[in-house]
Amino acid sequence: MTTRSPLAPAAFPALPDIAGVTRRVARARYKEWDRCDLTFVELAPGTTVAGVFTRNVCCSSEVELGREQVKGGKGRALIVNAGNSNAFTGYRGREAVEQIMAQVAGHLGCEPSEVFVCSTGVIGVPLPKDKARAGVEAALTAEPCSWEATAETIGTTDTFPKGSAASAIVGDQTIHVAGIVKGSGMIAPDMATMLGYIFTDAAVAPALLRDMLSEATSGSFNSITVDSDTSTSDTVLLFATGQAGNAVLTTRDDPGADALYAAIRAVALDLAHQVVRDGEGASKFIEVQVTGATSDDSAKRVALAIANSPLVKTAIAGEDANWGRVVMAVGKAGEPADRDRLAIRFGDHWVAKDGLPVDGYDEAPVAAHLKGLEIRVGADLGLGDGRATVWTCDLTHGYISINADYRS
Amino acid sequence: MTTRSPLAPAAFPALPDIAGVTRRVARARYKEWDRCDLTFVELAPGTTVAGVFTRNVCCSSEVELGREQVKGGKGRALIVNAGNSNAFTGYRGREAVEQIMAQVAGHLGCEPSEVFVCSTGVIGVPLPKDKARAGVEAALTAEPCSWEATAETIGTTDTFPKGSAASAIVGDQTIHVAGIVKGSGMIAPDMATMLGYIFTDAAVAPALLRDMLSEATSGSFNSITVDSDTSTSDTVLLFATGQAGNAVLTTRDDPGADALYAAIRAVALDLAHQVVRDGEGASKFIEVQVTGATSDDSAKRVALAIANSPLVKTAIAGEDANWGRVVMAVGKAGEPADRDRLAIRFGDHWVAKDGLPVDGYDEAPVAAHLKGLEIRVGADLGLGDGRATVWTCDLTHGYISINADYRS
Repeated sequence: MTTRSPLAPAAFPALPDIAGVTRRVARARYKEWDRCDLTFVELAPGTTVAGVFTRNVCCSSEVELGREQVKGGKGRALIVNAGNSNAFTGYRGREAVEQIMAQVAGHLGCEPSEVFVCSTGVIGVPLPKDKARAGVEAALTAEPCSWEATAETIGTTDTFPKGSAASAIVGDQTIHVAGIVKGSGMIAPDMATMLGYIFTDAAVAPALLRDMLSEATSGSFNSITVDSDTSTSDTVLLFATGQAGNAVLTTRDDPGADALYAAIRAVALDLAHQVVRDGEGASKFIEVQVTGATSDDSAKRVALAIANSPLVKTAIAGEDANWGRVVMAVGKAGEPADRDRLAIRFGDHWVAKDGLPVDGYDEAPVAAHLKGLEIRVGADLGLGDGRATVWTCDLTHGYISINADYRS
Repeated sequence: MTTRSPLAPAAFPALPDIAGVTRRVARARYKEWDRCDLTFVELAPGTTVAGVFTRNVCCSSEVELGREQVKGGKGRALIVNAGNSNAFTGYRGREAVEQIMAQVAGHLGCEPSEVFVCSTGVIGVPLPKDKARAGVEAALTAEPCSWEATAETIGTTDTFPKGSAASAIVGDQTIHVAGIVKGSGMIAPDMATMLGYIFTDAAVAPALLRDMLSEATSGSFNSITVDSDTSTSDTVLLFATGQAGNAVLTTRDDPGADALYAAIRAVALDLAHQVVRDGEGASKFIEVQVTGATSDDSAKRVALAIANSPLVKTAIAGEDANWGRVVMAVGKAGEPADRDRLAIRFGDHWVAKDGLPVDGYDEAPVAAHLKGLEIRVGADLGLGDGRATVWTCDLTHGYISINADYRS
């Protein structure tokens, strides 16, 4: 991994073991590198699964297959290939995925449809079947490894491994939630070259798991953007092994269901923030909060217009309180807005209200806020109760260096 | 002006005088600079006018007023302020515009509503009335100046002045069309911090003029993007002085109307291309052509998704034939597309067809194309007859330098 992002947490967090989840990694050598790049997570029989996937129409075979597989609600294994996304590789790419599914299913004695495969990396090069076969073979029999090693193995351009954990009381049981994620570019709703995996030992029916993942994703992975680009491979999977021994949760009204959801949501949000903190070239973590919109959906579209604006992102990179660019971004969103009711703030400092710079505007505290690593931008539209928060990073020379020098 | 864009034309073109159009410039000193920054164009009595304006909801008073004024169809004067956009300045900004309108109308003996005012520059600082009054006063009595001096005076971050001309035979008359434009950032449909002015000596009824401008804009100024950001001030105005003496054109079926439209369209397209050639930090001029879409509108949305993708733009900056990023951009557009029918080309070289890299793909001619200054990207969706072409530039370190160092 290259130089650690200045926005990274101090260290990889302590993640609990999740009963029924065993992680192994191996070297498939999908690229010319000497690192583990193939991850195998074995899941206990009875594990339920839910997934959300990229809305990119040109999605990979992995995504096409995964979308079908989650309908079954059962998962026994996860395979993640790093270094080759296998996207836009037609039937050859699909054959490689099906080969992996069959190979792992044969080993575990399960259905191929219970083996989830994800791939991340260059588009347009069919995943080499021989490397995949040998890599899977090695992974199936490797020693179990740590969460951190697993998080490192699924990464590509990431500068630090990303993990998060939470717990909740369900019935008499303490249940655990642990998650890992990779992704640092091509991050935008909905999903991005982002692969995220959350595991819990709770027992949860597939329909409720889907409901929880969908809601948790909306305010986390689908509320972040790095460069407005959306990958062909993005996937978030949520697995529940049921090993905690709680009575199976089937609805949000079941005792403990809300606590479990809160834990899942906390992990999803933390992981999503870490993705932004590793945005390509990022030097600032930016929270954009829009209030006073005509609806929450409208607020989110305005917030994303601000978060995706190259001019806003470069101004923040330059520590410039250029609120005019925020006004511009609000206005271009195509959502209801009234210039003469609009208010803009950086941090807690309002710089413009009612369509005018505030009287006696003092730039000093605003400039001080912008020198920090954590920037907050607020826009109040003054129209209604709609609100939304999204997160992004600034746009720097680092982004250009990473992406103009990247070779396909 | 800073270092001339490597994509600029060799020189400012020879533009004909347009009977009934007199240009003057002066120093209002809206910024701390010693250059002309206020333009006054006097138009002969009887001049008709049409305009298109930014769709940014947070538009400037100039845009609000201009949108109303064009309904009258008559124009006697144009004032352009450079260095201060006067946007998001509430009633104070509006008062400054109304002051200018009254001042010029008093001088010419016309209605204030026939005086069009545009401003470009920093957002959120009310246009200083004293500087505006003195600047207008100086401009009203200045010596007439060249097209090139006028094009330079309306510019802000532009690295070269932009002009274009064409002519047409209407009836027995040779009519002339000349245009100037400014703009190098915040350029995206619809409009951008782009101010464009096209003048003709033809006699054209306002309704037909509106029709021609609307159609010409769609395929030119509204088919370019630099950074996907859309300014609060963008305006294109088309003035017809009627001094050529042709019978007034009132419909597209009138003899000569098509010839005039072709000339206006040619000027608009040339000016739009020049705006892209001066895109902030641009090192490549990029044409994106989408064919085989389900409709022309769908094709345009896909083309803009490609043209606005930071990952596509950085890949081209890096001369990298990363067609996977083009696939990604097609897929994220939210338009009908079928991964397995999609074909991608750079220049005339197809690199992928039917969802797979082409057999025997030879990167050499593609790499050679990408080393040039003029890049063509094509995507055929294989679904229908919809097609569209848009133009953009690459995303480079220059863009970051210009926009992260810009001070509000």
